[in-house]
Amino acid sequence: MKAEPMFKKIAIIGVGLIGGSIGLVARKKGLASETIGVFRRQVSLKNALKMKAVDKGTMDIQEAVSGADLIVVSTPVNKVKQKIREAANRAKKSAIIIDVNSVKEDVVRYADKIMPAGVYFVGTHPVAGSEETGVLSANADMFRDSVCIITPTRHTAKPALKKVIRFWAKLGSKVKVSSPASHDKVTANISHLPHLLAYSICHAVPIEDMKSSGPGMKDTTRIAKSNPRMWAEIFLENKHHLLKSIECFQRDITSLKKDIRGSNKKALLAKLASAQRKRNSIS
Amino acid sequence: MKAEPMFKKIAIIGVGLIGGSIGLVARKKGLASETIGVFRRQVSLKNALKMKAVDKGTMDIQEAVSGADLIVVSTPVNKVKQKIREAANRAKKSAIIIDVNSVKEDVVRYADKIMPAGVYFVGTHPVAGSEETGVLSANADMFRDSVCIITPTRHTAKPALKKVIRFWAKLGSKVKVSSPASHDKVTANISHLPHLLAYSICHAVPIEDMKSSGPGMKDTTRIAKSNPRMWAEIFLENKHHLLKSIECFQRDITSLKKDIRGSNKKALLAKLASAQRKRNSIS
Repeated sequence: MKAEPMFKKIAIIGVGLIGGSIGLVARKKGLASETIGVFRRQVSLKNALKMKAVDKGTMDIQEAVSGADLIVVSTPVNKVKQKIREAANRAKKSAIIIDVNSVKEDVVRYADKIMPAGVYFVGTHPVAGSEETGVLSANADMFRDSVCIITPTRHTAKPALKKVIRFWAKLGSKVKVSSPASHDKVTANISHLPHLLAYSICHAVPIEDMKSSGPGMKDTTRIAKSNPRMWAEIFLENKHHLLKSIECFQRDITSLKKDIRGSNKKALLAKLASAQRKRNSIS
Repeated sequence: MKAEPMFKKIAIIGVGLIGGSIGLVARKKGLASETIGVFRRQVSLKNALKMKAVDKGTMDIQEAVSGADLIVVSTPVNKVKQKIREAANRAKKSAIIIDVNSVKEDVVRYADKIMPAGVYFVGTHPVAGSEETGVLSANADMFRDSVCIITPTRHTAKPALKKVIRFWAKLGSKVKVSSPASHDKVTANISHLPHLLAYSICHAVPIEDMKSSGPGMKDTTRIAKSNPRMWAEIFLENKHHLLKSIECFQRDITSLKKDIRGSNKKALLAKLASAQRKRNSIS
């Protein structure tokens, strides 16, 4: 006997790399009776159906959200608040809305403020993805063994929170729960800082030199292939925490430089060995 | 009819990740009638034979070098000059000695100075490898599509240079020829700088935060898993150029930080887009 699906209808607003992968896994695991995507462009709708990321697609947010008991807002960062508002205004009573934005404080504060009575918002951030964008790069293993950080506040309804945690666990993620502020601080360190540094290395190093790159340079800068507009928006949205992360990193580089300039091999080695141990601890 | 091998006997001093991979490919492609490795530890010798990285192993450099027409010095950086000297003093007339060190100016100057008449030195640097060390990580695809930079000087004999270029091409590398100084400048940018930054990110970011890392952070810092002692030595050996690379990078980060602090989206986006274009151009 097949288990009852978690949701009758999931609406996914923005069926790209992440939204599309959520749809793929939800369909594969039978987490919903129906999965419908909201699109801005006909070609993305066609691609999403071809990829089997959703059962059905529409350009009409009203049609998608109507009757949905889970609404996933997975648009680019500059549309998230607008789409949360549009979804909230059209959602049925008892619907749960989640976003997947990689910066949480501002979005969650906004969503808490505008959420109508009886519609429940839970902020989530799957730490997954790649330098690719678009539904054609979506895949059913996207969340396997990845971390998903869920960011409730004092306004978050417990039953909705529990259901969202269960949903992400079923998608394959290791769920962590954190405050939005603490999330943004951690994410500045482990996602926004490395993206900025990867871009910066490529920006600083002459193109003629880059042509001799080996696998080390290529891996370290892979994420500099990511969409620059998306990342400029993320960096600015998480400016407060990111600036602190950059400054901490700058102090570290200055200290390493001092060791190198002074040929202080003992101090240099101690720092590299400590960094290696930390890196080895996360696989 | 099988083609004549390029060399009668190849001696590999230091059969680790790179030396072992050279042996593997040379044997596979029949580039030598005999390939012999020089080891310091019995266990590495056994592993190298098990991996088929060499035909034969010895702890005795005299035995290996005697009669060899190609001698590959692929020890850790702090032994390279010593092993080049030991090899040179025992090499037969017309033998070619190459090293694979990732810093070239100092080693090549030294080798040019001490090379006996009739023994030919050519500096080489395969921009290949991984965060692994040791012969058990050697593999026959190590050099496929990688760049190998060959660093002749006015002392380098043309026929030896040509033969070494041909050897690396047969190992699978795209060969580039460069002066040792220019090599060290480029390598500071595309190899030593990214290694230092990967270590620095891991050193700067709290371990609790790192536990939530996604694929971006993991790839960007993969090379921080590399041997810290080896890299401390490389950083110090290429100190002059590396310090310049670090300073150029520091200026870049400072400028990005200024754009972020001032919410200058246009300037930020222009820099990220330029970095992305450069990164996309190298696959």
